[in-house]
Amino acid sequence: MSLMICSTKCLNDFDCLMNTMKGGRVVLLVLLCWNVANFAVIAAGPQTCPANLEGQCGDSEEWKGEFFPGIPKIKYEGPNSKNHLAFKWYNAEEVILGKKMKDWMRFSVAFWHTFRGTGGDPFGGPTKFWPWEDGTNSVAMAKRRMRANFEFLDKIGVDYWCFHDRDIAPEGSTLKESNAYLDEVVALAKELQGSKIKPLWGTAQLFVQPRYMHGAATSSELGVYAYAAAQVKKAMDVTNYLGGENYVFWGGREGYQTLLNTDMERELNHLASFFHSAVAYKKKIGFNGTLLIEPKPQEPTKHQYDWDAATAANFLRKYGLLGEFKLNIECNHATLSGHSCHHELETARINGLLGNIDANTGDPQVGWDTDQFLTDISEATMVMLSVIRNGGLAPGGFNFDAKLRRESTDVEDIFIAHIGGMDTLARGLRSAAKLVEDGALTELVRKRYESFDSDIGKKIEAGEADFVFLEKKALEWGEPKVPSAKQELAEMLFQSAL
Amino acid sequence: MSLMICSTKCLNDFDCLMNTMKGGRVVLLVLLCWNVANFAVIAAGPQTCPANLEGQCGDSEEWKGEFFPGIPKIKYEGPNSKNHLAFKWYNAEEVILGKKMKDWMRFSVAFWHTFRGTGGDPFGGPTKFWPWEDGTNSVAMAKRRMRANFEFLDKIGVDYWCFHDRDIAPEGSTLKESNAYLDEVVALAKELQGSKIKPLWGTAQLFVQPRYMHGAATSSELGVYAYAAAQVKKAMDVTNYLGGENYVFWGGREGYQTLLNTDMERELNHLASFFHSAVAYKKKIGFNGTLLIEPKPQEPTKHQYDWDAATAANFLRKYGLLGEFKLNIECNHATLSGHSCHHELETARINGLLGNIDANTGDPQVGWDTDQFLTDISEATMVMLSVIRNGGLAPGGFNFDAKLRRESTDVEDIFIAHIGGMDTLARGLRSAAKLVEDGALTELVRKRYESFDSDIGKKIEAGEADFVFLEKKALEWGEPKVPSAKQELAEMLFQSAL
Amino acid sequence: MSLMICSTKCLNDFDCLMNTMKGGRVVLLVLLCWNVANFAVIAAGPQTCPANLEGQCGDSEEWKGEFFPGIPKIKYEGPNSKNHLAFKWYNAEEVILGKKMKDWMRFSVAFWHTFRGTGGDPFGGPTKFWPWEDGTNSVAMAKRRMRANFEFLDKIGVDYWCFHDRDIAPEGSTLKESNAYLDEVVALAKELQGSKIKPLWGTAQLFVQPRYMHGAATSSELGVYAYAAAQVKKAMDVTNYLGGENYVFWGGREGYQTLLNTDMERELNHLASFFHSAVAYKKKIGFNGTLLIEPKPQEPTKHQYDWDAATAANFLRKYGLLGEFKLNIECNHATLSGHSCHHELETARINGLLGNIDANTGDPQVGWDTDQFLTDISEATMVMLSVIRNGGLAPGGFNFDAKLRRESTDVEDIFIAHIGGMDTLARGLRSAAKLVEDGALTELVRKRYESFDSDIGKKIEAGEADFVFLEKKALEWGEPKVPSAKQELAEMLFQSAL
Amino acid sequence: MSLMICSTKCLNDFDCLMNTMKGGRVVLLVLLCWNVANFAVIAAGPQTCPANLEGQCGDSEEWKGEFFPGIPKIKYEGPNSKNHLAFKWYNAEEVILGKKMKDWMRFSVAFWHTFRGTGGDPFGGPTKFWPWEDGTNSVAMAKRRMRANFEFLDKIGVDYWCFHDRDIAPEGSTLKESNAYLDEVVALAKELQGSKIKPLWGTAQLFVQPRYMHGAATSSELGVYAYAAAQVKKAMDVTNYLGGENYVFWGGREGYQTLLNTDMERELNHLASFFHSAVAYKKKIGFNGTLLIEPKPQEPTKHQYDWDAATAANFLRKYGLLGEFKLNIECNHATLSGHSCHHELETARINGLLGNIDANTGDPQVGWDTDQFLTDISEATMVMLSVIRNGGLAPGGFNFDAKLRRESTDVEDIFIAHIGGMDTLARGLRSAAKLVEDGALTELVRKRYESFDSDIGKKIEAGEADFVFLEKKALEWGEPKVPSAKQELAEMLFQSAL
Repeated sequence: MSLMICSTKCLNDFDCLMNTMKGGRVVLLVLLCWNVANFAVIAAGPQTCPANLEGQCGDSEEWKGEFFPGIPKIKYEGPNSKNHLAFKWYNAEEVILGKKMKDWMRFSVAFWHTFRGTGGDPFGGPTKFWPWEDGTNSVAMAKRRMRANFEFLDKIGVDYWCFHDRDIAPEGSTLKESNAYLDEVVALAKELQGSKIKPLWGTAQLFVQPRYMHGAATSSELGVYAYAAAQVKKAMDVTNYLGGENYVFWGGREGYQTLLNTDMERELNHLASFFHSAVAYKKKIGFNGTLLIEPKPQEPTKHQYDWDAATAANFLRKYGLLGEFKLNIECNHATLSGHSCHHELETARINGLLGNIDANTGDPQVGWDTDQFLTDISEATMVMLSVIRNGGLAPGGFNFDAKLRRESTDVEDIFIAHIGGMDTLARGLRSAAKLVEDGALTELVRKRYESFDSDIGKKIEAGEADFVFLEKKALEWGEPKVPSAKQELAEMLFQSAL
Repeated sequence: MSLMICSTKCLNDFDCLMNTMKGGRVVLLVLLCWNVANFAVIAAGPQTCPANLEGQCGDSEEWKGEFFPGIPKIKYEGPNSKNHLAFKWYNAEEVILGKKMKDWMRFSVAFWHTFRGTGGDPFGGPTKFWPWEDGTNSVAMAKRRMRANFEFLDKIGVDYWCFHDRDIAPEGSTLKESNAYLDEVVALAKELQGSKIKPLWGTAQLFVQPRYMHGAATSSELGVYAYAAAQVKKAMDVTNYLGGENYVFWGGREGYQTLLNTDMERELNHLASFFHSAVAYKKKIGFNGTLLIEPKPQEPTKHQYDWDAATAANFLRKYGLLGEFKLNIECNHATLSGHSCHHELETARINGLLGNIDANTGDPQVGWDTDQFLTDISEATMVMLSVIRNGGLAPGGFNFDAKLRRESTDVEDIFIAHIGGMDTLARGLRSAAKLVEDGALTELVRKRYESFDSDIGKKIEAGEADFVFLEKKALEWGEPKVPSAKQELAEMLFQSAL
Repeated sequence: MSLMICSTKCLNDFDCLMNTMKGGRVVLLVLLCWNVANFAVIAAGPQTCPANLEGQCGDSEEWKGEFFPGIPKIKYEGPNSKNHLAFKWYNAEEVILGKKMKDWMRFSVAFWHTFRGTGGDPFGGPTKFWPWEDGTNSVAMAKRRMRANFEFLDKIGVDYWCFHDRDIAPEGSTLKESNAYLDEVVALAKELQGSKIKPLWGTAQLFVQPRYMHGAATSSELGVYAYAAAQVKKAMDVTNYLGGENYVFWGGREGYQTLLNTDMERELNHLASFFHSAVAYKKKIGFNGTLLIEPKPQEPTKHQYDWDAATAANFLRKYGLLGEFKLNIECNHATLSGHSCHHELETARINGLLGNIDANTGDPQVGWDTDQFLTDISEATMVMLSVIRNGGLAPGGFNFDAKLRRESTDVEDIFIAHIGGMDTLARGLRSAAKLVEDGALTELVRKRYESFDSDIGKKIEAGEADFVFLEKKALEWGEPKVPSAKQELAEMLFQSAL
Repeated sequence: MSLMICSTKCLNDFDCLMNTMKGGRVVLLVLLCWNVANFAVIAAGPQTCPANLEGQCGDSEEWKGEFFPGIPKIKYEGPNSKNHLAFKWYNAEEVILGKKMKDWMRFSVAFWHTFRGTGGDPFGGPTKFWPWEDGTNSVAMAKRRMRANFEFLDKIGVDYWCFHDRDIAPEGSTLKESNAYLDEVVALAKELQGSKIKPLWGTAQLFVQPRYMHGAATSSELGVYAYAAAQVKKAMDVTNYLGGENYVFWGGREGYQTLLNTDMERELNHLASFFHSAVAYKKKIGFNGTLLIEPKPQEPTKHQYDWDAATAANFLRKYGLLGEFKLNIECNHATLSGHSCHHELETARINGLLGNIDANTGDPQVGWDTDQFLTDISEATMVMLSVIRNGGLAPGGFNFDAKLRRESTDVEDIFIAHIGGMDTLARGLRSAAKLVEDGALTELVRKRYESFDSDIGKKIEAGEADFVFLEKKALEWGEPKVPSAKQELAEMLFQSAL
C-alpha cells in the first residue's frame, strides 16, 4: 500500500507522503507534516522523493552510492586555505602540549541535530529535506540514516558519535516494540562502527513524548517514572553494547512550569531515587562509562532542576551521589544560566566534576537555546584553557550539540558547520597552548596570591588560623597594601595569543 | 482508502492515522506526527479516534451534539463564587466609568491558540487531543473545528475572534487550491457568525511554511515576496468579507538571524513597499478596518524589524506610512523587548498608535514568548489605565493571544484559562476605575508638573523660550527647589485600589 | 577649627562642610561631597546645617525634641483608611493561623538604607539631606543618628533592626580606633534598645573600603583576609552583646570580575577557612544566633561566589559547613539570579536552610539591585506561603533591605515606604492564610502526586525499586495515563485569594 | 589654613584632607570621602599627598616634571612585540583601504573616565589615588589635571579628547561661579591644545547634581529646565571655543523610574523643545559641530527616553528634528538594550544617523554599564565593517568611553587599557579590510538578493508592484525556490579574516 501512495506522491511531485505496513500494523511515514507549537499543520512541502532518485527511494534502507557524493574526506590545509571543505586549524595528528589534537578534542557528532534536525522552530516547520530522507520514521529509514551518519563520520574525520534512543530508532506502539526497533538499528550501528568508532555517549530521550510532559523521573505519575526507568535501562544496555564511553542524563522535563502546582521537594527526592537506581543498574551490567548530568537552567520548563553546575553539584552531594556522576557542560546552557561557559567549566572542574563538553554557543542577545556551532576564537580559547587544566576530558570529549541554522539547507552546510566548529576549537587549543607556553598570564595569576604562600598563609589554608590570632596580626600589620589586579593587562596578554 | 486506514488505526486503538482522497489527490491527515524542532518524529501517540465516538469520527465536518457537552454558558456570579466555570469579576453589561464592561474590553478569542494549539514546544510533541479532532488537516476537519469555535464563543460570551488564514483552512498544494479551501471554510464562518459575531482581526500566516524561512516581505527571494503579497491580498479580502474590524501584520520572519548575511536596509525598503501596497489594496477594496503592526523584538528571528512600539513608529514615519497603521501591543512582546507592558501601551498611545492589545503575559524569568493568560491584577490595572486614557480601544479590543500551558490537557482548561484572563482584566478595569474616581494618584502626577502651567512654562512648551532667555532666568532664580517624587506614595495609592 | 569652618559654611548657607578635632586628630566631616562612580566630585549641595536649627547642629549627638515631629505612632486603621500614615493590613496583635501577625513577620529596619542611604547612584550624588544630619561622619553624629533610629522603630512599631559595623559608627584611622568608635555607639544602642528591641542581625561591612576591592575572605592579599577576620570577630562580639538573633555574611566582594586573573578554587578554599573560623569563634563566645549566608549572583562583582541558594548549599556541603549556617534570601537577589523569589525560598526551605528574608523587590526590567520596598501583593502571597510552610522564620524575620527611591526626599517618605512594605507583606499573609484555609490549591497539588502514595510509590521513595522491577511494571502497565496539570486552575485559585 | 591641615594629614600619612580658601570662600577639598550609594561615608583612605612629593602637592596647579615619568611615547612595534607599552596593531600613519589608520579611527580620550574615574561603585569607595591628585576639587587641581590629560594625549598619540563641563572644572556655589571656573580651566585647555589637538566633543553633565534627579530637560520642575538650558548653552560655547567637532546629549536622567508618577508625553514634549532651542543656539553662535544624541536604554533610570537608535530616530522624526542631529552609538548601551553593537551601528547608519562611536564593551552576563575597554577582535571587526560602510565617522570618531576596572590601580594600567582598546580596534580594521578585499562575504550577501535586481524586483523597489500584479505572478510562478542562507559559511568567512 505504501508503495502505491508513494508513487502517487512521487508522480505528483509534491505532498510526498508514505505509509507502509511494518510488523503487521500501520506505521505512519511522514515528512511533510509537522505541528508547530501553536500553529496549523500544513500538508504541503517540497518534494522529498524525487523522481530521478526512484531507486533510492521508498521503504528500504538501501541507498545507492554515497550519501555525500560531491564531498571528499576533509583534510587539513592550513590557515591560508580558501577551501570551505578543508580544515585550516584542526590537524588531527599534530601534537600540541604533548598530546595529539584529536586526543585533546575527542570530537563527537550529535546524531539528533545532524541527522534528525529538521529546521523546525516554535513558529515554523521543517526546512531540511535531505536527499536520503524518504519522509518516513520507519526502521528502514532509521537504518539508511545510520549509514549516512557513518559516512559523515568518516568524511569529517570524527571517531565518536552521540545519540538518544529515539533519534536512532522509531518509537513503537509499545515499549517492547520500541525496544525491538532499537535493537535492530543498534545492531547495524555496531557493525558500522567497526573497531575505530564508538559512541562518546548515549542517552534516553525523555522529553518529546507527551507522557513525559510533567517530567520523567520527576513526573507526578508513578507510571511515567516506571516507563522512564525502563527506557533508561534499555538505553544504558545499548550504550554499553556499542562501547559507549559515557551515559548522559539531560532532564529537559525534570523541573516545573509553576510552583503553584508543584511539590518540588518530592520531585527532587524521586529524581534522586531514579539516579540511585541508575547507578545500581550501571554496576549490575558492568558498564564502565561515566554517568553525566547535563545542567540547563530552563527551556522547555520554566525551571529545570539541574539549573547549573553548582546546583547539580549540590544535588549530588545532598543525595549521596557524589563520585557516581560527572557533569556534561554545555556552553549555551551556561550562558542561559547567567554564567560564562568558562565559569561553568571551572565550577565543574574544581568540584571534580568536569566530564564532557557539549560544544556549542548561544546568541548573547537571545534568551533561548540556539545551539549554534561555536565560532568565537576567544571563547574557544577560554574553553581550552579549562580543558588543559583538567588534563583533557577523557573519557569525555567535545560533542557537537549544535545544529545548522534553520535557513541553512544545503547538504554541504552540514560539513561547513562542523568544519567551522572543529577549526574554532582547534584554534582555541593553539591559542591556549601559546598562553601556557608563554607563561605570562599564569605568572600574573600566581603572583596575585603569593602572600598566601607564606607561613601564615599556609596556616590559614590549613584551617589553623583562628579569629583571635588573625585579629592580633591585623592590629600588628596595620593597613594592608593592596596591589592592582591588572585586569587590562591580563586581557592584553590573553588577546595577543589569539 | 482513508477509511480503511482509519479503521485499521481505530481497531489498533493507537497510531490513529488517516488519509483521504481530497480533490482527486492524496492529502495527508496527520495527528500523531510532529516534528519537534530538533528531535525525532515519533509515530505513536494517544488514541484520537476512539471507537466509541465512531459516528463523530472520520472525514466529515459533522459533529453530533455539543462540542463542550458538560459546560454551560459562563455567567457572572460575583467575587465570592467558588465556581470555576463562572465569572467573578467580568459582568458584561455592567457599566463602569460610563461604558459597559463588554464595550471597554471587546474580548476576542484567538483561533490559533485555542483551536490549533497542540501543546508542542521545541522539545516536545503535541499534548492536546481534543475529542473533536480527527487527526487530520482536512477541509472537513477545518469546518468541524470552526463549529467548535462558535460554540466556544457563545458559551464564553465573547463576540470577536481572530485568525490566520492557515489556521482556519489547510494549505493546498498550490496557492489557488489554498485559496479555494479558505473560501470554503470562510463561507461557513460567515454563516456561523450571524449578526452578532465578527473577527476583531484577521491576518496571514507568513512564518510556518519553509518558503518564508528568510522572511515574507523581507525575504531575499522575489518569488517569496510575491507569494506573500498574494497571501495577504487574500487574507484582507477574507477579513473584509467577514466584517473584520482590523487587519494585523506580525512579521515573525521579518528580521534576521545574523547581520553577516543580511542587507538590512534593502530588506526594510522591501517591507515598506509591501506595506504601501497593502494600504493601496485596502483602499481599493473598500476595507475600513484598521491596519495594525504587532511589534515583537525577537523569536523566531534573532532580531525582528518591528522590535518595539518606538521602532515600529520610526519605521512608519521614515517610510511615510504614519496615519495608515496603528499598533497591536502584546504584553509578552513588551517584556521580551525590555519594557513593561504599560510602557509599550503608553508609547503607542502618545504616538497616536494604540490600536489593539494582545492580552497575555510572559514569565518574568523566561526569555521566550510564553503567551500565558494574564493573571496578574496589578499588571491588568496598569493596562486598563492606559486603555481608559485612550478612551477605549475600539475598533480594536483585547485579543487573547494566549494559550493553555502544554500540560493543561482537559477541555475544561480552555474555559478556565479564558475565564481567568477575562476576570483578571475585568478586575483591572474595576481597580483602574477606582483609581480614576478616587483621583489621588492623578492629582499627585498633575501637581508634579504644575510649574510648567506658569507663563514661562507655557512659553517653553510653545517652543518660544530660547537658551539666552532661559539662562537669564536660571541666573536670576538661583538654585531651583526640587521636591520629592513620592514614588512610594504613588505605589501605595496604586496598590490600595487593588 | 572645625567650628569656624562650620560657621563659615552655615553663614554661607551652602557648602556646609565641617571638620572637627576628634581624639586628637583630624576627622573629615563630609556631607556634600561624594564621588560618583565615574564622575566628578562636586563641591556644592543644599544646605545641611540650616541657620534656624543652630542649636541642633554641630558636633554634638544632642537633638532637641523629636526627629520626626509631625509623625505619630503608626496605627492599624483597616483597608478603608485613606491615611497614608496608617496600616491598612498590618495589625500586629491580630492572630492569623494561630499566631500573631507580628510573630509571623518579625519585621526589622535596615539601618544602612534607612539611616545611611543618601540617594546616590552610579551617576548621581546624594539627594537625601535629613534634618538631623550635620554633614559629618563623626561619632557624635553616629549617636544622634542612632537616637533617630530608635524613635523610628518606636513610631513604626518594629522591634528589630539590622546593621553593618561601619553603618553605625565611623571607620577610624586604625582598626583599634574603629573598634573604639563602634563600642561607643553600641553602648548607646544597647541602652536605647531597652528590653523590647533587639538586632535581628548584625554584620560586618567588607565591601566599601578599597582594601576589600579584591574581596575580604577571598582577597588575594593575606593581610586583607586577616583584617576581615578581625572585623568580623568584632562585629560578632557586638551583635552578641546587643542580643542579636542572627549574624549575616553577604560577600559583596567575594567573587571575581574576570576569571583571567582569578584562582577561583583557591579563593573558595579561603572562604571556607574563613567560615570555619567564624563558626569556631561563635562557639567560643557563646553566641547563640544563627549564622546566615546571603546569596547574590553579581553586583558589584561580575560573579559572586554565593550566586544563589543552591550554590550556597553546595558550598556548605562541600566544605563541611552544613548545619552551621542558614540562608538569608533576598527577593531582589533571587530575581537577579534568574529565579523567582518564591523559588529561592523553597530551595532554601527544602535544603533545611531558610533562615531569614530580606524583604524587598527589584524591577523586572532592570539588571541591577534596586532594593525597592515590596509592593506586589501577588509576590507577597507567594513569599508568605513559603514562610507558613516553614513554620515561620524565627529566629529570623523580615528585614527591610529596601530603600527609598533616589527621588523620594521627604522625611515622611521613609514612613510611607515602610508602611507600604509592611502592609504588602501583611496582605500577603492574609491571602496566604485564605489559601491555606480554603484548601483547594493544596488539594490540587496533593492529588497530582497521589499515585506515589501507593505501595509501589512507597517502594520507589524508599529507594527499593530497581530498574529491572520498574521495567517489568512498565511493560505490564502499558502506556501511562497522564492527567492535566491544571496550571490555569491553580492560578485562578491563587488569584482569587488576593 | 589648608596647608596646615594638609601637613597634619601628610604627617599622619592618612586621612589626607585639605581645605583651601578659594575666591574668598571655603571650598571643600576632598579625596577620601565618598558616599557610596547606600552605605556609610568612611573617612580614611590611603595617603594621597605623599611626603616625598611635597613640592608637587598642595593648592597649586603646578606639577614638577612629568605626570607619567616612567612611561615613554607609545610606539608601534608590530604583532610580535611583548612590550605592554607598545602598539602591536595600531600604526597611525599606515594606510588601510586608502586612508591612514588614524583617520579611520579618530581616537579620543574620555576625560571623565581617565581623569575623574575614582573606581567607586554602588558598593564601594574610590580605589584610584593618582599621584597628581591632591584630594581636592579645586580649580587649581582642575588645571593640574588638565596638564596631565595633555601629557597623556601626547604619550598615547591621540589627537582628540571629550569632556563634560563639570569633569574639567568644579561646580561653584552659583551658576555664575561655575561658569567662571569653567572659563578659567578652558582657557588653559585651549592653550595646551595647540594646533593639533581638539575636542572630539563636549557635553554638559546634567545627571550628578541632585537638582537633576527628576531629569534636566524632562524634569518636572521648570527651574531645573532653565538651569539645564543655561548649562548646555555654556557647554556649547566652550566646546565651540575649543574647536570641538561635535556636541553630545546623553540624557542620563531623561527618563522615568516609574510610570505611576510620570507624564511621559509632557516630558517628551519638553525634551523636544529643549533640543529645538539647542539647535537654534548652535546656529546663533555659528558652531559647526554635529549635535549627537547618545542612546541608552536604562541606568540610572529604569527607562531612558533615548532607549536605542530606533527610538531616538523616532523621536527626531516625530518632533521635526531630523537633519539636525546624529547619533553617538555606545557598544555597551547597545547590548544593554538587547541589540548587538553592530546592529545599533547599522540601524543608525541606514537612518543616516551614524555620527560617532563610544568605543567600549560590556560584560555579556551583566545587566549594567561596565564601560570596559573593547578587547574582542570579533566585535571590533564587526564595528569596523560598519564604519567602512559609512565611509568613516568624521567629524565623529571613536571616543574611549571606557574605564579601568575598579581593581586596576597602577598608573601604567591607564596606558595598558588604552593601548589594548586601540589595538583591538586597529586589529578590527585590519580584519575588516581583509574581508573587504577578499570580497567573498560581500559577494555572498549580494547574491542572496539578486532576484531583486530583475525588472520585477526594480518595480517592487520603486513601489510600483501592487498586490493584484504580485498575486498574478505568484500564481504563475508556483512554489518559489528558496536557497540556503549559508550562515555557517558566512561565519567561516568572517572568522578566517581574524
